[in-house]
Amino acid sequence: MHVVCVGGSDAGISAALRARELDPSTHVTVVVADAYPNFSVCGIPYYISGEVSEWHRLAHRTRTDLQDAGLQLLLGTRATRIDVDGRELEVVRPDGGTSLISYDELVVATGAQPVRPPITGLDVLGAADGVHLLHSMGDMFILSESLKRLRPRTAMVVGAGYIGLEMAEGLTARGIDVTQVEAASEVLPTVDEKLGSLLHKELEHHGVDVHTGTSVTGIQRRSDGLHVTGQAAGGGPLSWNVELVLVAVGVRPDASLLLQAGVQSGPHGAVIVDDTMATGVPHVWAAGDCVATHHRLLGTTYLPLGTTSHKQGRIAGENVLGGTARFAGSLGTQVVKVFDLVAARTGLHDREAIAAGFDPASTTTFPDDHKAYYPGAHPIAVHVTGDRVTGRLLGAQLVGHRSTQAAKRVDIYATAIFHGMDVASISDLDLAYTPPFGSTWDAVQIASQAWVAQYQS
Amino acid sequence: MHVVCVGGSDAGISAALRARELDPSTHVTVVVADAYPNFSVCGIPYYISGEVSEWHRLAHRTRTDLQDAGLQLLLGTRATRIDVDGRELEVVRPDGGTSLISYDELVVATGAQPVRPPITGLDVLGAADGVHLLHSMGDMFILSESLKRLRPRTAMVVGAGYIGLEMAEGLTARGIDVTQVEAASEVLPTVDEKLGSLLHKELEHHGVDVHTGTSVTGIQRRSDGLHVTGQAAGGGPLSWNVELVLVAVGVRPDASLLLQAGVQSGPHGAVIVDDTMATGVPHVWAAGDCVATHHRLLGTTYLPLGTTSHKQGRIAGENVLGGTARFAGSLGTQVVKVFDLVAARTGLHDREAIAAGFDPASTTTFPDDHKAYYPGAHPIAVHVTGDRVTGRLLGAQLVGHRSTQAAKRVDIYATAIFHGMDVASISDLDLAYTPPFGSTWDAVQIASQAWVAQYQS
Repeated sequence: MHVVCVGGSDAGISAALRARELDPSTHVTVVVADAYPNFSVCGIPYYISGEVSEWHRLAHRTRTDLQDAGLQLLLGTRATRIDVDGRELEVVRPDGGTSLISYDELVVATGAQPVRPPITGLDVLGAADGVHLLHSMGDMFILSESLKRLRPRTAMVVGAGYIGLEMAEGLTARGIDVTQVEAASEVLPTVDEKLGSLLHKELEHHGVDVHTGTSVTGIQRRSDGLHVTGQAAGGGPLSWNVELVLVAVGVRPDASLLLQAGVQSGPHGAVIVDDTMATGVPHVWAAGDCVATHHRLLGTTYLPLGTTSHKQGRIAGENVLGGTARFAGSLGTQVVKVFDLVAARTGLHDREAIAAGFDPASTTTFPDDHKAYYPGAHPIAVHVTGDRVTGRLLGAQLVGHRSTQAAKRVDIYATAIFHGMDVASISDLDLAYTPPFGSTWDAVQIASQAWVAQYQS
Repeated sequence: MHVVCVGGSDAGISAALRARELDPSTHVTVVVADAYPNFSVCGIPYYISGEVSEWHRLAHRTRTDLQDAGLQLLLGTRATRIDVDGRELEVVRPDGGTSLISYDELVVATGAQPVRPPITGLDVLGAADGVHLLHSMGDMFILSESLKRLRPRTAMVVGAGYIGLEMAEGLTARGIDVTQVEAASEVLPTVDEKLGSLLHKELEHHGVDVHTGTSVTGIQRRSDGLHVTGQAAGGGPLSWNVELVLVAVGVRPDASLLLQAGVQSGPHGAVIVDDTMATGVPHVWAAGDCVATHHRLLGTTYLPLGTTSHKQGRIAGENVLGGTARFAGSLGTQVVKVFDLVAARTGLHDREAIAAGFDPASTTTFPDDHKAYYPGAHPIAVHVTGDRVTGRLLGAQLVGHRSTQAAKRVDIYATAIFHGMDVASISDLDLAYTPPFGSTWDAVQIASQAWVAQYQS
């Protein structure tokens, strides 16, 4: 039995490891396009910030760990074509030559690519000019090199999503004056604007110059650096002079290998898989950022996340051996640290809920993370979204100080949504209380009681 | 409509407030034996430690808040008898006289009393001698007074449950050398010994002299302080000289008012109620530490907790007005801070699971709270208990550094147990990840995967 996995990141390695774990007699080959298998790319901002001093530490497992687990790694090797009938994968070796690798089962986890927004100049400028995209370990080294070479005092981060926010913090931590530009009306548009505005203030508090509702339209190289032009919504043209530009406006699936093999595509060009991670093309499975995600409330969507990639990879690795594992679905649970704040969400944003045919209503309350009499209490902004008709909990968002356990309180809501709970029933949960860490009604219950009081009484 | 609530702590006040919230025309009287309605008695250790400098701050709500919410408070008033047929409550007023209060509906929330273990001398010694029990605000003031008067350099805490542990820390914080004696084989016997031993080490690391498997048999007053004698299990007699003794070995229900009214008693002498908090005696409801608790896995048990009291009080307050609220049941979720560690549990300890007829198996693993490359990561000891036959999650216990969000990670398990999840399904949950606060598989999932690997593969 020969299982071939394409992709050295979360999904590909998870599939490979799971197959070996379940049957150590399986021959498992992992085709890795770069030299960095099983790295935690979510850690990149912390290498750039200097909090992680040694890049090797970003590895989930070392190359030796992976080899000891029985994986055969083909590094610097690009998969270029799947011969479905012949069950062969065509690859380009590091030496530039082409090989064919026979497989019994193939797991494709080619991931995603950073989106290149329509900014004039972005197609011709690059790292040599101080213009960067950031997605892979390779991108990280290139950015790190630019930072050392240019020693920029100013930088622009285009985009204020998860990566953009982390990078605004990371560059600030290096002593760089950061300008952050976001096209949406508030930073972190995946959460409610009221909560996003708390992050906005936190960024400004730490010296980041934030421009929301603003598009970057062009980047020009000048003798003294980069000249960036933009446009505020309903306002006039804007311009900035900076020494480095980092574009972080999201990713798109890297699905060409699968599409060429005849796999059907769905939202955003991601490939369609069933809940076993089968593609419909015989003996070809797919997982991670290249596939359309099953969302428990939205159905098929595109929602690339490391947590989902690990789950899907593990499921594919089980099923290539004849297993019956099924992906239970995502809820879009996410969390990001922005300086001293944490922003977390699960389930649906109001606008997603409306688009999905729900009748959402939301409340935002500010319960303390723990009893106010015990030192160190902070309010958490908790935005609870429920369905007006059924009372069902649809989503929750939290923004609070990094000490407020908001990053795991969101998981209480995630577990509740997983089980289709009503907002009112959150009060039935038996949650832990001690004055230094909670209240007799936990913050998640106080927030849900406020929703019930507003919409169900 | 006149609702009378007996008891000024969590359950009584919750019932009173809920009734007023739902129908502001309801006349609500609360009979409070002492002068401290709606105080957070869980905060007492932090007043003793000095972390809470002002005792008024321990109030969940001020007396004015309660009056503004429409509650009529009868402070210093002891309820002595219920005339069920006449729907009258007999009380002793602060002036010593007796009154009868008519009610339409009566909620009895008389709470609990500290257990007095069979220690020779405990019946004759008291605060004047430096011998204390600690349950109420009054007890707190008396202890505080003793600490000021005696300025003890040494103290013994008898018992190493939640309160005993918090008080060992609190007295240590005051610069007192603490000896802690626990009859069970390890501290915090509600968690697995392996986890308890981590707390044991933490206590010792902070200078507490811990004696487990040891009973205190007698206390004598001598000219230079208190002479305490004890007995180690399988060992010889022991003795200590200390200047103050605090006994904290649990509570028993204070149910005499209800028992006299004909309500049936159950485990530990607590009264039996149904899930609406009705006692079976017409127009008499009961809630909080005086009632037997419905446990979702154990059925009827005795498990006094502030969180449960709030839930039950709220339900009683709704149902006295004709509501249909039902107590969904406890899972025994608890958390305690012990110096720099947190210990949390939910569901069943192995021995409870065996007694309840399950076939439990457990694993203890030590996943990091967040990615090790990001500064400040700590392992969490996670003890997962599942049923060998059905795979059902029965319980979880966590001990970790106070920064590890263990206090809310336990709630993920609590929510999972609430819904009857299998251990294996924990991996299906979509939990939040960012390197500073978690891992792509959260610690709770890594621990449950270890259980599955050990018992289901």
